[in-house]
Amino acid sequence: MSSYVKGLEGIVAAQTKMSYIDGAAGKLEYVGIPIGDLASNSTFEETVFLLWNSRLPTKAELEAFTKDLRASYALPKGMAERVKTVPTTAEPMHMLRTMVSALAMHDADPNANSVEAARAKSLKVLGCAPAIVAAYDRSRRGLDAIAPDASLGFSANFLYMLNGEKPTEAMTRAFDICMITHADHGLNNSTFAARVVISTLSDVYSALTAAIGSLRGPLHGGANEGVMKMLNEIPSVDKAEAYVMDMIARKERIMGFGHRVYKAKDPRAAELMTLAKQLAEDTGNMDLYTKSHKIEQVMEREYAAKGIYPNVDFYSATTYHCIGLKLDLFTPMFALSRIAGWSGHIIEQLADNRLFRPGAEYTGPHDAPYTPIDKR
Amino acid sequence: MSSYVKGLEGIVAAQTKMSYIDGAAGKLEYVGIPIGDLASNSTFEETVFLLWNSRLPTKAELEAFTKDLRASYALPKGMAERVKTVPTTAEPMHMLRTMVSALAMHDADPNANSVEAARAKSLKVLGCAPAIVAAYDRSRRGLDAIAPDASLGFSANFLYMLNGEKPTEAMTRAFDICMITHADHGLNNSTFAARVVISTLSDVYSALTAAIGSLRGPLHGGANEGVMKMLNEIPSVDKAEAYVMDMIARKERIMGFGHRVYKAKDPRAAELMTLAKQLAEDTGNMDLYTKSHKIEQVMEREYAAKGIYPNVDFYSATTYHCIGLKLDLFTPMFALSRIAGWSGHIIEQLADNRLFRPGAEYTGPHDAPYTPIDKR
Repeated sequence: MSSYVKGLEGIVAAQTKMSYIDGAAGKLEYVGIPIGDLASNSTFEETVFLLWNSRLPTKAELEAFTKDLRASYALPKGMAERVKTVPTTAEPMHMLRTMVSALAMHDADPNANSVEAARAKSLKVLGCAPAIVAAYDRSRRGLDAIAPDASLGFSANFLYMLNGEKPTEAMTRAFDICMITHADHGLNNSTFAARVVISTLSDVYSALTAAIGSLRGPLHGGANEGVMKMLNEIPSVDKAEAYVMDMIARKERIMGFGHRVYKAKDPRAAELMTLAKQLAEDTGNMDLYTKSHKIEQVMEREYAAKGIYPNVDFYSATTYHCIGLKLDLFTPMFALSRIAGWSGHIIEQLADNRLFRPGAEYTGPHDAPYTPIDKR
Repeated sequence: MSSYVKGLEGIVAAQTKMSYIDGAAGKLEYVGIPIGDLASNSTFEETVFLLWNSRLPTKAELEAFTKDLRASYALPKGMAERVKTVPTTAEPMHMLRTMVSALAMHDADPNANSVEAARAKSLKVLGCAPAIVAAYDRSRRGLDAIAPDASLGFSANFLYMLNGEKPTEAMTRAFDICMITHADHGLNNSTFAARVVISTLSDVYSALTAAIGSLRGPLHGGANEGVMKMLNEIPSVDKAEAYVMDMIARKERIMGFGHRVYKAKDPRAAELMTLAKQLAEDTGNMDLYTKSHKIEQVMEREYAAKGIYPNVDFYSATTYHCIGLKLDLFTPMFALSRIAGWSGHIIEQLADNRLFRPGAEYTGPHDAPYTPIDKR
């Protein structure tokens, strides 16, 4: 055994053909294609095909894939009733984790994990996860669930099921770009959790459930909620600089900045910044955008030499707010997109599996006696 | 980054004060006390206290701990109804994972994860998990759930809720020893999964849910089911040798033998062998025991030089069968016990946390163009 590596930093734990990150250069590629090119030109559906097949689809392939995905929009029998029984006080991530876990109980063959079966199950979960989130959010607002519309793409269908009206082109595109840019990101904690769990040859539901549980942590997917809370605490743009400088003076962590991987600007943040500005203008939220931008300027002035830049969470907060999403739906949006990446990693792991079984360093006593209780 | 370490074998990923394994010597200790001494002298309650506090309790401490655990036997409000809605065709592990996840939705403060809060939540899950399993098993048999009896210990209470009658002393003790011997085992896959998930500062429910999902895999907790299936396939003791030799000739894996960690006899198997024999005698299942014993003899003759010995799964199969448990409850029994170990590791991780974020080796292309769809 080697010595203890805290957090497994610097250890390579898996091989992947999906995403490549060059933190020093601020570069992210999916199957070699720069994330910026995908954000500008692709759709979420096409990006998922790319991640799962290591190449872009032909027109016929994309049509077939999209058709399959749309056929998965509706919840399996019994699941709509199950979502209705969730206490309306539940945090959506606890709800989503529980409902994705429950999907296994509504699958006649939940444990099939050939690569083909895992792919089919992943498509089903990806397809119907938006219906789970939308139905729960409507349920807690006292509203009936809205059936999916299979004439719509992934993003438009979700926003339609959530709000009961078809979204504008701009909103749909903005949301779709968020889905594209969050779909995969190397061996982040939730992706790693999914690979660890599937490595016992468990099942797709178990692995995705683990990943959702990981993502809800504040050190992972919960970060964009923290950004929004900070933005809400700053009453106006002219108070932003003092707020940030106060936090720096108190040595508090400023949410949405820095990333263990990126030492240069997070390449996903650049796409989102442009998007957030446009949406803020369209939806009358320019004060939020200018606050964000001011914080970025102050942080850059104070910390750029140390390599602390806004990360993907920083501008997704503004984006989701402009789309009209409640704060506690931010992390579930991350999950909807990342199901694509998690699933791809599950499939990669199944195709060349080895059980994850690291060692532990034991720091307790040895050869201790069992002292009878009346002698303790 | 170092080179790719498949399965993280040989990497030390955590520190623990709970269990120590010396595979070469066939040795397992909890906080320094040999597992055999605990199996002979301790109770599950005392063992859990030991794992969570790094020492054996005084009489007063054990009484207080037992009282707290018994106060957690009953399901939180709304959970009994939730268990009733589970399709009766569901595999119990999918059910258990989903219901433990759902406990978060019935906790007013599910995300509290100070060490104290995590300990209290762990105690609650450990205390009520038996009620979940028993209620579901009765539900699928068309029977009403039985309320827990807080005058009984952990093991007796579970068997009472399952069967509707108080178990014999021998059964209770046998079950309790199974709980003691399965409670912790270093950084096995499910324990590692729990530590990975809690390291995002997620929550106890998310981490335990991930662990249950891992445990249900056939390369992990599912192994004792495989042993029982094999025993059922062998019609009688005199056919056992030929059956095993046939499997060896076909190069099939014989369930219940070998372990990545132990290269000598699994020290937990020795305890269980004695126990299984006694129980088999008491319950008229000696044919099952003699079949097991014959398989062990054949395997020892063929493989002992290579260090392949029966592992903990091999004799727990006979034990659980003699207690009257259905095959698909074997892995949930493992889970009931291992919640103790998972929780202890969650608490250790929270006390000195660092996000698990290993690297991946990217094996795909670089600098690929985004080719427009009509040019592909």
